[in-house]
Amino acid sequence: MTPRRVSILGATGSVGLATLDLIGRAEPGTYEVVALTARSNAEELARQAVRHKAAHVAIADPQAGIALKQALSDHPEITIGIGEPAVVEAAAMPADWTMAAIVGAAGLRPTLAALQQGRALAFANKECLVCAGSLFMTEAARCGATLLPVDSEHNAVFQVFDGAQRSAIRSITLTASGGPFRTWSRERMMQASRADALAHPTWDMGAKITIDSASMMNKGLEIIEACWLFDLPPEQVDVVVHPQSIVHGMVEYADGSLLAQLGSPDMRTPIASALAWPERMAAPVERLRLAEIARLDFEAPDLERFPAIRLAREAIKAGGIAPAVLNAANEIAVESFLADRIRFLDIAACVEEVLSRSHGDADMPRSLSAFDDVYAIDARARQLARDLIADRISDPQSRTTSS
Amino acid sequence: MTPRRVSILGATGSVGLATLDLIGRAEPGTYEVVALTARSNAEELARQAVRHKAAHVAIADPQAGIALKQALSDHPEITIGIGEPAVVEAAAMPADWTMAAIVGAAGLRPTLAALQQGRALAFANKECLVCAGSLFMTEAARCGATLLPVDSEHNAVFQVFDGAQRSAIRSITLTASGGPFRTWSRERMMQASRADALAHPTWDMGAKITIDSASMMNKGLEIIEACWLFDLPPEQVDVVVHPQSIVHGMVEYADGSLLAQLGSPDMRTPIASALAWPERMAAPVERLRLAEIARLDFEAPDLERFPAIRLAREAIKAGGIAPAVLNAANEIAVESFLADRIRFLDIAACVEEVLSRSHGDADMPRSLSAFDDVYAIDARARQLARDLIADRISDPQSRTTSS
Repeated sequence: MTPRRVSILGATGSVGLATLDLIGRAEPGTYEVVALTARSNAEELARQAVRHKAAHVAIADPQAGIALKQALSDHPEITIGIGEPAVVEAAAMPADWTMAAIVGAAGLRPTLAALQQGRALAFANKECLVCAGSLFMTEAARCGATLLPVDSEHNAVFQVFDGAQRSAIRSITLTASGGPFRTWSRERMMQASRADALAHPTWDMGAKITIDSASMMNKGLEIIEACWLFDLPPEQVDVVVHPQSIVHGMVEYADGSLLAQLGSPDMRTPIASALAWPERMAAPVERLRLAEIARLDFEAPDLERFPAIRLAREAIKAGGIAPAVLNAANEIAVESFLADRIRFLDIAACVEEVLSRSHGDADMPRSLSAFDDVYAIDARARQLARDLIADRISDPQSRTTSS
Repeated sequence: MTPRRVSILGATGSVGLATLDLIGRAEPGTYEVVALTARSNAEELARQAVRHKAAHVAIADPQAGIALKQALSDHPEITIGIGEPAVVEAAAMPADWTMAAIVGAAGLRPTLAALQQGRALAFANKECLVCAGSLFMTEAARCGATLLPVDSEHNAVFQVFDGAQRSAIRSITLTASGGPFRTWSRERMMQASRADALAHPTWDMGAKITIDSASMMNKGLEIIEACWLFDLPPEQVDVVVHPQSIVHGMVEYADGSLLAQLGSPDMRTPIASALAWPERMAAPVERLRLAEIARLDFEAPDLERFPAIRLAREAIKAGGIAPAVLNAANEIAVESFLADRIRFLDIAACVEEVLSRSHGDADMPRSLSAFDDVYAIDARARQLARDLIADRISDPQSRTTSS
């Protein structure tokens, strides 16, 4: 069997490392690591490159490039690229399978480069679909690339989504843990501290995504992703709150069958599922024992307390620049919340206001017709969000959530 | 599109009628009804034959044959067969898809005749797999038939069982409602009345299967079926009690994914899934709303109170005649319970005792090597069960459950 040639963009992040861990556990000769990239963690990148006999590494941060060269000085067989264009070049190297796990807008160009090779593209980067879904899916179709979602909810749906029976698919459902504020009143949420919002009940993730989970903006962004990925209108993408995070996603068929993927809340399952696709591999994940879990709960999300879901639905319905604006405004708002500059419920209020202001804004691109537009929309929406937050701080009476 | 030629064995039972109802709702020209059979309900058989423009009908009961001829006297275009051999002949008529829904041992020969045409065979008859699983599966493979299980649990597993990834399948799980005695103590179960046992919490079924559900022998028989159908040892066939009957079956993969089929407890979903297979059709089934159901519970079955599960596992492990003996003894025991001749916990005790007596019994066939053996094993096991129950009734002190 010829080894599957793989490259990993964002190799030193949690998804990248988990992917490498699975590769290391596979039968020798199953995978061949073509390229690994990282933003700035030279030490870890070098360690992984040596361990997995990578042919090439690239690091975005030029400063870290020096450290990377030193760390790999005993390994002249590993070629090195430095700087953001080098990361894009690494992404474009021939491979059969690529994990695109670079977080944020920085992931857009490398992911696109990998996509354009027409390969199997596992992706954990939200921005590609949230901000540039129409362009990204068009390009994927043009290049014949297969998109393998790694996000646990989309991966779950993907596992039980029969593309050959599209017309019999009534809806898909993404589950949401509900986050730390699932049972809080709106009044109490208004006073929520940073620590409150960071106390996620089931998943251990970074600060930004944990706050998005608390506001359910995470689920809003996932609705947008799902609409693109599965080519469904937002009305066919449901969200159900499921605090145990055991059922990750479901597909409802016209015959009344609801197919679901369940699993322990462990990213290695969706990663393994994408890595071995269309086959299956073993992953060192705790076996799910439903009799021990004993109980699974489901409830409708409260759109009053979690307006982010409504905002995301409105943005994908509006289309064009709206999802990118929503995403950028949310990033700034979350940053500001984490810096104790705004309160928790101000996050969604800020996003809503920036979406509203973006319509009449002279400096905002009117449409999304090329990938470069994404950067312009993103930059302008961030500016609008920063201005709005600065105004609010100087005039606390204007805070939406205090009214 | 050429219509799919279908035949329905057991057309006037609940599964047969539900199949015909779905056929009637499909786009005209999707299905063409080749043959319908029934045991004795001539009136219903005639009505369905006329409604669905069946080419042929067959009825097992010769007495009912007269009524059938009268009922179809205005329809000379429908040919008629009378008697059990005529039912087998109808089953052997060329068709693309057959629903084998004849209950009990009577279903064996017609189902086998349909199987031997090498067609898609949807089956709701337990006996074929429980009593003659090895022969039945060998014959299916020889004839190239595709087996489509209609039982809700097996159908669920079938929907998420990726045969191409067999080596990555760790286990399958059949769910059980737990029946009316799920929360009863063993002491209370000992005194359970017929009415208690017939009060099934979620499914509306016939008396025999409802009692089997109360004793969980139903699940035991399903374990045996699943072992044959999915070619798995009993250790890889789990049972979990799930009182809401929403999750019907699951497949666990090596990467930690557990794929499940959920649905309202309505037989029309698995029937529609089998009827349209490998495509999907719409079924007039209530949409499943998990947020409204709110809660799903799971618990391990109590093998102390429900020994039937243990007995079934022992029988499939022993192989040979044991599953057929178990099935026959259970049928007699359930009959006796329904006739108020034995108590509820005597059912499993009787099955266990008959299994034990079958080993040394001179009149019991030693092996299962041809389909005709099934009838001999079945008849002898029934006799052993009847004798045992007669002994007990004349000597109540010997009742296992009173000790």
